[in-house]
Amino acid sequence: MNFQILKQSGSARAGLLITENGVIETPVFMPVGTQATVKAMTSEELTNIGAQIILANTYHLFLRPGSQLIEKLGHLHKFMHWDRPILTDSGGYQVFSLSSLRRVTQEGVHFQSHLDGTHLLLSPEKSMEIQKQLGSDIVMCFDECTPYPATFEETRNSLLLSLEWAQRCQYVQLGSWQSLFGIVQGGMYKELREQSALCMKELDFNGYAIGGLSVGEDKETLYEMTQFTASLLPESKPRYLMGVGTPQDLVEAVKSGVDMFDCVLPTRHGRNGQLFTSEGALTISHQKYVEDDKPLDSNCECYTCKNYSRAYLRHLFMAREILASRLNTWHNLHFYIHLMKRLRVAILEDKISTFRI
Amino acid sequence: MNFQILKQSGSARAGLLITENGVIETPVFMPVGTQATVKAMTSEELTNIGAQIILANTYHLFLRPGSQLIEKLGHLHKFMHWDRPILTDSGGYQVFSLSSLRRVTQEGVHFQSHLDGTHLLLSPEKSMEIQKQLGSDIVMCFDECTPYPATFEETRNSLLLSLEWAQRCQYVQLGSWQSLFGIVQGGMYKELREQSALCMKELDFNGYAIGGLSVGEDKETLYEMTQFTASLLPESKPRYLMGVGTPQDLVEAVKSGVDMFDCVLPTRHGRNGQLFTSEGALTISHQKYVEDDKPLDSNCECYTCKNYSRAYLRHLFMAREILASRLNTWHNLHFYIHLMKRLRVAILEDKISTFRI
Repeated sequence: MNFQILKQSGSARAGLLITENGVIETPVFMPVGTQATVKAMTSEELTNIGAQIILANTYHLFLRPGSQLIEKLGHLHKFMHWDRPILTDSGGYQVFSLSSLRRVTQEGVHFQSHLDGTHLLLSPEKSMEIQKQLGSDIVMCFDECTPYPATFEETRNSLLLSLEWAQRCQYVQLGSWQSLFGIVQGGMYKELREQSALCMKELDFNGYAIGGLSVGEDKETLYEMTQFTASLLPESKPRYLMGVGTPQDLVEAVKSGVDMFDCVLPTRHGRNGQLFTSEGALTISHQKYVEDDKPLDSNCECYTCKNYSRAYLRHLFMAREILASRLNTWHNLHFYIHLMKRLRVAILEDKISTFRI
Repeated sequence: MNFQILKQSGSARAGLLITENGVIETPVFMPVGTQATVKAMTSEELTNIGAQIILANTYHLFLRPGSQLIEKLGHLHKFMHWDRPILTDSGGYQVFSLSSLRRVTQEGVHFQSHLDGTHLLLSPEKSMEIQKQLGSDIVMCFDECTPYPATFEETRNSLLLSLEWAQRCQYVQLGSWQSLFGIVQGGMYKELREQSALCMKELDFNGYAIGGLSVGEDKETLYEMTQFTASLLPESKPRYLMGVGTPQDLVEAVKSGVDMFDCVLPTRHGRNGQLFTSEGALTISHQKYVEDDKPLDSNCECYTCKNYSRAYLRHLFMAREILASRLNTWHNLHFYIHLMKRLRVAILEDKISTFRI
């Protein structure tokens, strides 16, 4: 993997992330394909929208259909018919949010599957093994997701565990095409963020993620911690803010020097009939759209906006038709990816300070 | 509307049905788009598969979103972004199968909506008004769906009511681009089928449907009644067998001289993971497909078969992903439409008698 910064505007960066499966223009938004499918979308549609890289979830794919099976069938790319880059998370977050009976030891996390209750262990070594089997282009270190709120002491202990785990992740030999990203933790304590960033830099990863944010803190704290943590990371490596966020969150983070994002908001909101438009949020179930023959967003060039009215989209949503999920997801993902493209242009033209959604 | 028969092979016919919104090559299968969407599919995908005409349901669209609304938004074609021909049924069948508290009078059928319990009336005049508002290319007469089994007397009375209603349908002025089809009833009584066909011919419709079949009778009866009824209909008009059926049913009916079909089987079975293949039915949830890297059907050229393995399709289905419904529906509709194309070629080459699925 190679990362080139083409232009900086304020702290914001426009770059190229070069992987064996394709070149990614940054800043970039990665649609979430939890179960080896970006919900409701085909690969061709994602390409049409301009998706350059997607995220898949290690925890889900480990449980079903199993990472060994996916390896056998030609890794994730062939299995799911997506030939562009893929990033896999470590499974650490889902172990905490979805499974039951968790027990954290130095070895790793013992837990029960949310699907069938099987007792399983996820450890740094196991997470690397799974991600190697999945065959993603970017592999994330296995870390502990620090709860929120947490005391300074709890946060420090969690951070130290994650640090030890990060080192163990590095010992595992990945595929030749795979890159490993470290994750900076430290909760809402700047001193701990600094400590975590310093140690992670020392370990020299291919890229660095900012983890443990968007976990319940207010927006001001989110933006401040993002800005602070990003400023601690090496200039020459890609920076990835995990699981964030709203369009406004993305703009703020790009201005702070973040290069990569993932979030379920556009896809999940799409399925729930919550649409992002250039004039703000739109709830398609509202009565006022019953006879509305306008597109969702008159400024949008996506397939949904070019061919369908709000009235039809409302009808599909009320009738619980699959096409509702498809068209709404298409539009929301287009909105996010188009926003990143506009941000990139603003950086290249050195106009990021005056950028508005 | 104009119907030309290009070639006959045995009783089977290959023809052209010329409508204002496009020319349809017959025999033809019409995918069912109940709520102004063929479930899980876009119009572009239907076109890609080779769909030439779709069916939409008057009963459903009357209840939601309402036919007046659809008229206001440019008829069904514009509303649902489908510019090829559309056939609408009369609502008669769904009034019987879905609504409650039905009361049949000479005027029409009084019933309660299955959605919100509203008291409504569907009559020949009302059905014509709704179908005019929907703006379909082919309009079906409002008839009574004769229950099965039914006595000779019951069937005759039902037939006479439908006959009176058919005459009332003809009195209604439709759009200039719209054609009206009559429906032959008569249950499983040849004498009554003959009587119904004779009267319907007398009324001179643009086309004729065979109704009241596939309601619980055995296959032998279905094929016999289809063959018998088709033989009673005018040579020069299109013949449409309503709501039938399996691939084998379609082959038998084409051999009997039927030109048009609709059925929910390919779409519904697709969503339920029941796939049609050149080697018979396939249930994708079966354990034996867990590691199967072959396509659903090695002889199939559809998008699903060209790009995805059975293992992946099984994974999507088990994980209840929307993409499962999409890919399975795509394949099944392709199977049906491809079957009709093959039947057409067999007729044009005068080889229908040796045709095999």
